[in-house]
Amino acid sequence: MEIPEKLLEVLKKDGVVAIATLGADGPHMVNTWNSYVRVAEDGRLLIPAGYFHKTETNIAANNHVLVTLGSSKVQGLNGPGTGFLIKGTAAFVTAGPDFEAMKARFGWARATLAITIDSATQTI
Amino acid sequence: MEIPEKLLEVLKKDGVVAIATLGADGPHMVNTWNSYVRVAEDGRLLIPAGYFHKTETNIAANNHVLVTLGSSKVQGLNGPGTGFLIKGTAAFVTAGPDFEAMKARFGWARATLAITIDSATQTI
Repeated sequence: MEIPEKLLEVLKKDGVVAIATLGADGPHMVNTWNSYVRVAEDGRLLIPAGYFHKTETNIAANNHVLVTLGSSKVQGLNGPGTGFLIKGTAAFVTAGPDFEAMKARFGWARATLAITIDSATQTI
Repeated sequence: MEIPEKLLEVLKKDGVVAIATLGADGPHMVNTWNSYVRVAEDGRLLIPAGYFHKTETNIAANNHVLVTLGSSKVQGLNGPGTGFLIKGTAAFVTAGPDFEAMKARFGWARATLAITIDSATQTI
């Protein structure tokens, strides 16, 4: 799907992204920085994975992910500050262009976490 | 438990907090701002709830929550930028001092989401 303009605006601002997966022992959550997220031409979110081991394990059994991100510096629905709730499916990519480009930028990346967006809802 | 100093430092910086709960239909995630979070004297995190309806429903059945927050402006384990993963249990409080104080500050608050911290792990 096409990424909302406002979400692209948020990615340009400083901030923390949260990524939730579900494992046998319940939800798990990890973070990355807005500035680390790259949007692929096909609209997937590409995120460098340094650790994310439990996220990888969870995704292997259930590839559904929730992602939230926001910025107080972008105009929202009720004034300054906006945020998004993204629902999607994720894969760990350890070879090919999506990984190589990430590895070139983030030497510590052991994989690219590629998220295909099903929905991106502006929550505020 | 005692809140780590660095977590208190993060709460003073601009940023987005993510709160994950688990429902029958999978994980759910909502956000608030670092600046909205108050730390009670007993160490609970108190957060104003405007919407959070699905979070409330989920918590009624399973009160475990995950919370992440961070700031690129606070020194972390590997340089600038730090983040925390909090595990805890949550309750919606709609009366008494924990609600009244929140309501006085945030007129739109319909409840206080009170989170008792089991663990707060600095992840970066």
